Amino acid sequence: MATLLHIDTSFNGENSHSRAVTAAFRKAWEAEHPEGTVIYRDLAAEPVPHLGAADLDAGGAAAADRSPEEPAAFESRGRLIEEAERADVILIGAPMYNYSIPSTLKAWLDQVFLVGRTAIAEHPSLAGKRAVVVASRGGSYREGTPQFGNDYVENYLRLILADVFGMDVSFITPELTFAPHVPAMAELVPLFEASRTESFAAAESLAKDLAVQLVA
Amino acid sequence: MATLLHIDTSFNGENSHSRAVTAAFRKAWEAEHPEGTVIYRDLAAEPVPHLGAADLDAGGAAAADRSPEEPAAFESRGRLIEEAERADVILIGAPMYNYSIPSTLKAWLDQVFLVGRTAIAEHPSLAGKRAVVVASRGGSYREGTPQFGNDYVENYLRLILADVFGMDVSFITPELTFAPHVPAMAELVPLFEASRTESFAAAESLAKDLAVQLVA
Repeated sequence: MATLLHIDTSFNGENSHSRAVTAAFRKAWEAEHPEGTVIYRDLAAEPVPHLGAADLDAGGAAAADRSPEEPAAFESRGRLIEEAERADVILIGAPMYNYSIPSTLKAWLDQVFLVGRTAIAEHPSLAGKRAVVVASRGGSYREGTPQFGNDYVENYLRLILADVFGMDVSFITPELTFAPHVPAMAELVPLFEASRTESFAAAESLAKDLAVQLVA
Repeated sequence: MATLLHIDTSFNGENSHSRAVTAAFRKAWEAEHPEGTVIYRDLAAEPVPHLGAADLDAGGAAAADRSPEEPAAFESRGRLIEEAERADVILIGAPMYNYSIPSTLKAWLDQVFLVGRTAIAEHPSLAGKRAVVVASRGGSYREGTPQFGNDYVENYLRLILADVFGMDVSFITPELTFAPHVPAMAELVPLFEASRTESFAAAESLAKDLAVQLVA
């Protein structure tokens, strides 16, 4: 049975563009997998701890070699990793905050990035899984725009999820989400609307494509 | 009187390379400014909150327009910004964790990045100040090395501190810090040691240069 790990990180609740698009993906995925399992994590509502020295050491040590503090530290870290390992598809809402990912998402990645298991391992445990990232952003960072080169979301997440973890990653990028709120961006509203429409369509078709691939 | 804001983020305590080098900078700075003020923040010991919707809205609203929850949210954010504004020099220990900055440092930057005050303002309030970043890292990311292009610390912090905040930023990059601990990196130990020696020297000479500039 198929399992989806759905992670949201935006603090904007009902106004969030990334949450709206992850919800659309999830809805389409659930329609394809009526008996599937969805694990949901809302990192804005319940952040995971920043990585600490005890987590790091416990992660690297064999169970028998762990210090007295380490099993507890590792338990929460291990739970996050197991969640990711149980999933066939990991769906991540990753809005751009100040040109990079939310601090809550970095904390989650630091917990899940475990050398010898998810990273730098002979068989990294998330390799081959699918990841879908909804990387919404207030402006546009496409080639030819003034902000080209200032996007530290997509390149960084591709490095971690694809190059390090070995996942097969798709990005959906609703952009220009500030346009309806910023007078100087008024003329960009039609482009924002087109991007939003495209993003919902991409989420739905991607959910269907992944279902077909899982079945096949 | 000169003020230094000293921020550490490494969770490695006494084993931390970034902390050793920020301490060397601070010691040299204190010798130049015996009556100066040092404000210290240890983000590993006491992280600041992840940015939330209330912080964001409160930051953008005029005091009179803030909702009942917003003044409290803004108070802690305002305090972090005022600390940075009081400083002549901001010293940041920014070890690379999984190719980018610690989640605790991203949380601090998100709190301090305030449109209309530190960012995207006619006179951004930190513009012209000096920043010194100790960006230690386990490997090497120099041109010609296999990991070239995977450093998301220096380029990102340059964007935020220099391009957005308008600060004059210097980087000190102790590198190959994993070499003494990773057998496969044994032959890199001399390069690690050279990098460490250079980093301490750079910290000391930079502290002296900045003192001369402040006096002049």
